[in-house]
Amino acid sequence: MPGFQVQAVHAGLKSRNLDLAVFSSERDASAAGVFTTSQVQGAPVIWTKKQIASGKMRGLVVNAGNANVATGSRGRLDTQNMARSLAEELKCPVNRVLVASTGVIGVPLPIVKVRKGIAAAVKGLSPRGLSKAARAIMTTDTAPKLESRQFFIGGKRITLAGIAKGSGMIEPNMATMLAFLLTDAAVTPNFLRTLLRSVTKTTFNRVTIDAQTSTSDMALLLASERAGNLRLRSRRSAGSEIFEQNLCELCDSLARSIAKDGEGATKLLVVEVTGARIKKDAESTGRLVANSLLVKTAIHGADPNWGRIVQALGAGSVPIDIARLTVSIGKTVVFRSGRPSSSRQILKTAEGMRQAEVVLRIDLGTGEAAARIYSCDLSREYVSINADYTT
Amino acid sequence: MPGFQVQAVHAGLKSRNLDLAVFSSERDASAAGVFTTSQVQGAPVIWTKKQIASGKMRGLVVNAGNANVATGSRGRLDTQNMARSLAEELKCPVNRVLVASTGVIGVPLPIVKVRKGIAAAVKGLSPRGLSKAARAIMTTDTAPKLESRQFFIGGKRITLAGIAKGSGMIEPNMATMLAFLLTDAAVTPNFLRTLLRSVTKTTFNRVTIDAQTSTSDMALLLASERAGNLRLRSRRSAGSEIFEQNLCELCDSLARSIAKDGEGATKLLVVEVTGARIKKDAESTGRLVANSLLVKTAIHGADPNWGRIVQALGAGSVPIDIARLTVSIGKTVVFRSGRPSSSRQILKTAEGMRQAEVVLRIDLGTGEAAARIYSCDLSREYVSINADYTT
Repeated sequence: MPGFQVQAVHAGLKSRNLDLAVFSSERDASAAGVFTTSQVQGAPVIWTKKQIASGKMRGLVVNAGNANVATGSRGRLDTQNMARSLAEELKCPVNRVLVASTGVIGVPLPIVKVRKGIAAAVKGLSPRGLSKAARAIMTTDTAPKLESRQFFIGGKRITLAGIAKGSGMIEPNMATMLAFLLTDAAVTPNFLRTLLRSVTKTTFNRVTIDAQTSTSDMALLLASERAGNLRLRSRRSAGSEIFEQNLCELCDSLARSIAKDGEGATKLLVVEVTGARIKKDAESTGRLVANSLLVKTAIHGADPNWGRIVQALGAGSVPIDIARLTVSIGKTVVFRSGRPSSSRQILKTAEGMRQAEVVLRIDLGTGEAAARIYSCDLSREYVSINADYTT
Repeated sequence: MPGFQVQAVHAGLKSRNLDLAVFSSERDASAAGVFTTSQVQGAPVIWTKKQIASGKMRGLVVNAGNANVATGSRGRLDTQNMARSLAEELKCPVNRVLVASTGVIGVPLPIVKVRKGIAAAVKGLSPRGLSKAARAIMTTDTAPKLESRQFFIGGKRITLAGIAKGSGMIEPNMATMLAFLLTDAAVTPNFLRTLLRSVTKTTFNRVTIDAQTSTSDMALLLASERAGNLRLRSRRSAGSEIFEQNLCELCDSLARSIAKDGEGATKLLVVEVTGARIKKDAESTGRLVANSLLVKTAIHGADPNWGRIVQALGAGSVPIDIARLTVSIGKTVVFRSGRPSSSRQILKTAEGMRQAEVVLRIDLGTGEAAARIYSCDLSREYVSINADYTT
């Protein structure tokens, strides 16, 4: 990626495997971020939120294995020290350095190991380090999540790449959602912020593994501006539509990967709501279904249990008109006009539910708004991972 | 119970076991009800809500095995026919008969079996039938839930008894929460309603098994007025405090039984929040913790994982001041003033977590309001029950 270099190392925060990644921009890159809405936020979230307000960055350090959350004043100092270490190595101001951490809560960071890891990573900085970084930020993820694409704006080739991690949407001893998106396009920080907020709403924020909000979530969008395109300043700039479309597709793909790789997940669950009066209703209705333990266990068991879907719909504040409601599993209608389909038809659906991806389609029949939510099934394995973890 | 007679029979809605109960009051009893807030409501809920508005009842029929939900106009007729059958048997107006159903959603009621069951039950009506009714309303419950107590108001002995069922707070193929409370006290319908609403808020509505809202939930409070006490009309009536106190304790006890017998549950989880600014904050905070899959699996695994509790607290809209927060498991403080207790102390807590009841105490340190939520752990068994159910 022109303008950025990346490297990941094993600093010793996880017992083995890569656990620390460093990103460097050869000069000030444009930068924007979105962060967890939790009332409890990790020291790295507080730091990065503050520094990124300038819209500029030179360095980013991310560690897995320790979230540096609820570690008091020591935690705030450790985050500062991480930033300072990288700033010294990159010879840039400390307020141009961003920090993200994921892993155990409430345990002080082994800062000496981290500093050594930063130094080692900076020595190995490479234009091709992103796939190693994708592995370094994993916690209970079973696979790295990396996407990239190229496209043209005004004849200039633009590269856009992103890595992410998920697993339990948050699991304070192990996980959190992080995404780092890099591009060489020229985009103003303000417009980056607009784009990232908008795209996050329909991609990363549409993922729900276990309805838990992390203390450490963040997504950053960084632009080295090396591609030489006319700077994108707003949705009126030529090429901004192409950029937004590609960003959206890339984030959507990362979001799906996160859902599919949820803790203990054996299946991706896609809930598509249509026919809502307003977008907000479509989204909240989709979440009710995607977060319902009864729906998630039915998906796990390949049980075409439309009753549980109807019940989940009823729990919200959006009025449900049973007579106008259509529920489909995959391509098969299982409930329409106040009545279930024939048992034979419903049983046929069960076969399709054994696939790696199950799509539930819910048409509320009351309007034009739609939304899509990504989730996964709930398995005994999720309970095992989370019950048998010992402190 | 003076004034009421009860009987339960096997009508054939469940493969074996009692599945239909009839309650009769020898003359008009005072009556009040609270009902599910679901946007999707079963035909029996709609019927009973309408009839109980009169504040009077003579008969009540409850069946398990079929919830009569999402069965269209046929379902509404079936509920009416159930009421009519019982009205004919008891020789009372049909609008004095209440109906409750729990069980499978979306399957038409076998109305002939139900009518025969009603006739058989009425023949066997007995002043001592309540414990059989407690068994007849069970679905995936593993034990009947029956409580009774006696006390005096103005020298008159008052009897108060109640039965309930739960399991999955709702499991549309199998469960729902129902409670029927009987007393011989003289209480006006209006005051019964006030009492029932108030008591439900702090007892039945404080139970959460899996955060799912039933289409069939109801709690009814029926008073035969046979005890001969001066009629209780409001909280200013002499004896009303004693009555409310006893009703509250009885419902609290039933609510605990429901939580303890949640689907797949191996432990009762009690979340006690104190130090909230207002009651609403205490309650919503308690629910966040009690509904967190990560907390529920930790409780299951006897893991004193305070990090998950802190994370769950952060997810709501109530501001959390980590420096003022105290989290205890049982009697042991695990997190105070922004820091966890020593590992040795936390490990000690794990032993207490192997008990059948785990109490999490959360002091927000910001006010005087408190609330208690009842829930249970999340086990592989819950997933098994709900994944392996086949239509």
